[in-house]
Amino acid sequence: MSEFIKSKAAIAWGPNQSLSVEEVDVMMPKKGEVMVKITATGVCHTDAFTLSGADPEGIFPAILGHEGAGVVYAVGDGVTSVEVGDHVIPLYTAECGECKMCTSGKTNLCSAVRETQGKGLMPDGTTRFFKDGQPIYHYMGTSTFSEYTVLPEISLAKVNKAASLEEICLLGCGVTTGMGAVTNTAKVQVGDTVAIFGLGGIGLSAIIGAKMAGASRIIGIDINTSKFDLATKLGATDLVNPKDFDKPIQAVIVEMTDGGVDYSFECIGNVDVMRSALECCHKGWGESVIIGVAGAGQEISTRPFQLVTGRVWRGSAFGGVKGRSQLPEIVERYMAGEFALNDFITHTMGLEDINDAFDLMHEGKSIRTVIHY
Amino acid sequence: MSEFIKSKAAIAWGPNQSLSVEEVDVMMPKKGEVMVKITATGVCHTDAFTLSGADPEGIFPAILGHEGAGVVYAVGDGVTSVEVGDHVIPLYTAECGECKMCTSGKTNLCSAVRETQGKGLMPDGTTRFFKDGQPIYHYMGTSTFSEYTVLPEISLAKVNKAASLEEICLLGCGVTTGMGAVTNTAKVQVGDTVAIFGLGGIGLSAIIGAKMAGASRIIGIDINTSKFDLATKLGATDLVNPKDFDKPIQAVIVEMTDGGVDYSFECIGNVDVMRSALECCHKGWGESVIIGVAGAGQEISTRPFQLVTGRVWRGSAFGGVKGRSQLPEIVERYMAGEFALNDFITHTMGLEDINDAFDLMHEGKSIRTVIHY
Repeated sequence: MSEFIKSKAAIAWGPNQSLSVEEVDVMMPKKGEVMVKITATGVCHTDAFTLSGADPEGIFPAILGHEGAGVVYAVGDGVTSVEVGDHVIPLYTAECGECKMCTSGKTNLCSAVRETQGKGLMPDGTTRFFKDGQPIYHYMGTSTFSEYTVLPEISLAKVNKAASLEEICLLGCGVTTGMGAVTNTAKVQVGDTVAIFGLGGIGLSAIIGAKMAGASRIIGIDINTSKFDLATKLGATDLVNPKDFDKPIQAVIVEMTDGGVDYSFECIGNVDVMRSALECCHKGWGESVIIGVAGAGQEISTRPFQLVTGRVWRGSAFGGVKGRSQLPEIVERYMAGEFALNDFITHTMGLEDINDAFDLMHEGKSIRTVIHY
Repeated sequence: MSEFIKSKAAIAWGPNQSLSVEEVDVMMPKKGEVMVKITATGVCHTDAFTLSGADPEGIFPAILGHEGAGVVYAVGDGVTSVEVGDHVIPLYTAECGECKMCTSGKTNLCSAVRETQGKGLMPDGTTRFFKDGQPIYHYMGTSTFSEYTVLPEISLAKVNKAASLEEICLLGCGVTTGMGAVTNTAKVQVGDTVAIFGLGGIGLSAIIGAKMAGASRIIGIDINTSKFDLATKLGATDLVNPKDFDKPIQAVIVEMTDGGVDYSFECIGNVDVMRSALECCHKGWGESVIIGVAGAGQEISTRPFQLVTGRVWRGSAFGGVKGRSQLPEIVERYMAGEFALNDFITHTMGLEDINDAFDLMHEGKSIRTVIHY
């Protein structure tokens, strides 16, 4: 087996530049690592956020992409949980099963590879991507904008081979994040009222989660009304455009719901909307879950009275889902028809057109563009 | 029965003035109301907060006081749950048992008399206190700085007559608030680690709650080290003075606890400390409970990343305790020796010296001064 293989990849050479589709060298997996041939990857706002330069942890040059699915191409020494040919979803939140976080039973935020992942490196502190000998950084431990990528074994969920990789790649981030925040983090119950701020991929997935949980009222909020039809199809019972009102949106929601909702979800990453989402919750018990990722240095704020009178402010990452334990089961539920993924895929294209995918997203014209290799 | 009786009372004529001990006229209770002869009342920081003028909802002239205990002196028409001679604790958080809040099973924040109570009035929109014909406002629905006061029936917890009124008056606010925030709101479990910011009456009560819950580590934090001995006696395992460190106190606590505490409690009302309390919680599951009351217009803030990575921000009012349902049982637990109240009573004095009680509190020299009539 050669030391590396050639791979098509979209390189982010620097902040606020277009991606450059080039051929890179991908080193074969080392001990405990796996090389995956990515067959499909979504393009998510978080990729755009990092590419914009607003992400304080953004490192360049890097290969972005974190919402992919593919087939195991090669395994390093000691890898036992997957073999060549297995279908896998890369996990930006690993699951080692052994760290303090994994064994707590309280969180999905495994700490095993966090430090090196945050530096754009594999756990041994090196990179597997090179361009003409120059190292290129990994991104979120996944780098799915490369046809071949290398991940730690603990960062892969092995899933049913019968599932469409082009659809289940969306479970690698957006759909799992939105659905999980509702069903896993907030644990919405039958009859609860829910407000969902932002109807992109995450928000629409949150609607699916609320519908699955049996919420009695699902209020979708967005200034982009082109999302309203799909939101309704997925289960939203009310749709609100904040621009239609002179008063703060939280006051509108509180009025609509006789005091506020049981649960709200911020799916944008806007700190002002995070405040609105908290303050539209019902006194005494309403809980607001932050899902969106805010820009560097931005802060949320509110009067402490909001919390002292019984509202709860929390957050959710990857829907609180433990990737290796839970994602395979979510794929099975998808295959059983509990929810659909094709509604989200508004565009598909080859890697060479990936910059068009970013443009469509920035223009609010896409839910998800799926890139196929 | 005469229309009113004469009562000794401490009147707050205006913000930032000393209280004036005078004789007032207290109208006899109307339908659904009860007149209570207060025998003892604590002086709490919240009284001082309102008296200072910082409370945006402060109304003057008023009779302050909300941490009392006494004996039913007269009942109005239709009152069935208490009778003359019963021992009662006045509740600034009523419990009607019928409103949306009471029947939710999720909160103790009864809404039945909230609106008029916030205006310093009885539910019928009038006051029962007069001085030379001039109406004097009620405060928190309790006004325990008057020897005779009138409350709605639903604002009284009937308790065991064998309990010392001079001690259990502290269950009318501080001790219940601190203990309840730990055991009721946060639901601290055996082995959990806890940080308590501010070692006044609330913070020390939170220590008792943490000890009762079986917390493995109880870290008390205060810049007034004179509170440390009592904190240790009550169960604190570690005591920290933020002034001993050059770095933020949250960094100190995170280091002491290998990543942060399971639960933290802010018992001061300082919005900067509220942030520290949140940020000293463990990633993935740590929860921070705001108990202290902040000044008008003040806001809490943090980076949303703190929540997205699993911390939870909540608050607690009156320890989440439903006064009529739960307070009688808490009195029984006190009588059974599960916790002591006399540790808190550093001073006792008559009503005529009440301004001294405020001075002692401002100087940090008292935990609680109990006023007796």
